[in-house]
Amino acid sequence: MTSVSILGKGNMGPAIASVVEKSGNTAQLLGSDDIDQPVTGDIVVLAVPYPAVSTVLEQRGDQLAGKVVVDITNPMNFETFDSLTVAPDASATAEIAAALPDSRVLKAFNTNFAATLASGTVGEQPTTVLIAGDDAEAKSQLAELVTACGLRAMDVGSLSRARELEALGLLQITLASGNKIGWTGGFALQP
Amino acid sequence: MTSVSILGKGNMGPAIASVVEKSGNTAQLLGSDDIDQPVTGDIVVLAVPYPAVSTVLEQRGDQLAGKVVVDITNPMNFETFDSLTVAPDASATAEIAAALPDSRVLKAFNTNFAATLASGTVGEQPTTVLIAGDDAEAKSQLAELVTACGLRAMDVGSLSRARELEALGLLQITLASGNKIGWTGGFALQP
Repeated sequence: MTSVSILGKGNMGPAIASVVEKSGNTAQLLGSDDIDQPVTGDIVVLAVPYPAVSTVLEQRGDQLAGKVVVDITNPMNFETFDSLTVAPDASATAEIAAALPDSRVLKAFNTNFAATLASGTVGEQPTTVLIAGDDAEAKSQLAELVTACGLRAMDVGSLSRARELEALGLLQITLASGNKIGWTGGFALQP
Repeated sequence: MTSVSILGKGNMGPAIASVVEKSGNTAQLLGSDDIDQPVTGDIVVLAVPYPAVSTVLEQRGDQLAGKVVVDITNPMNFETFDSLTVAPDASATAEIAAALPDSRVLKAFNTNFAATLASGTVGEQPTTVLIAGDDAEAKSQLAELVTACGLRAMDVGSLSRARELEALGLLQITLASGNKIGWTGGFALQP
């Protein structure tokens, strides 16, 4: 059994907690008011908006040592909804990995809308969680959890691929916020 | 009737020419040996590999004035298949637009594998051609052509969005070249 801690009670955190619980694994869902509760999971999902990540890392960075840390953020400019706020040759995940040298940091879930986690599908396709990272064992562990949750997992490569995942996240959010696709749709991966 | 010139006889050029002809529109397919034949189409598709673009623009740049020019390139490092060769804050399309100030430059087709143009589908979904550019009328003209070809067209925004389309192209090609998806698959857009 995998024990998962999810930091963030917004849109995505409860959606991830829900599929984890349905899979029979344990989910600990922690919000900003739960700062007195330590992180207990082996896998920790950072499900806060990108601007809140640095605060979470200040508060809980020590608790994340040795753990698989999953960055799901889309570091968007939320005023324009038209660009990323990380440097063009960087990614939020690379920044987080640099800040957490004792953690095994992965990118995942940033291209999945919350509704597609709950439904398990994007159109006719199973919802696919794209996973990037440099730690093969950590990726396998997350992929196993994702599969247990009834979703499809796809290892898309090294941590450097997080940049393309964040670009895809931006593209998909601009389409949904512009009403060109629904928040139940998006890019479905056809094998 | 739209008249389309396609520069490049590799993988994508003939695939695009084929669907254009099937739609009842006119396709002129020109390779590097056809340098004596002038471009006649109103829409010109640059279907050469990115490293060949500068040569084509030197040879035919004058012929492209006033035309809708469609950049389909994925400016990848073809040795590593692991990164883009344009500057991280740039795109091939932005470079081409700068080199062709008298043309109406669009990005399109770079996220469509050739086989999905021929089949018209990616899994259960119709093949969707993602179009980025700053000229709304040019985008409408291309979208109309794409729709006539039996494909779905999606305006994804301004020319700056070409950067994300090139990131998506890179991601998709790394998955196919790594045998994680087939060249008949890829990211299908669910509305």
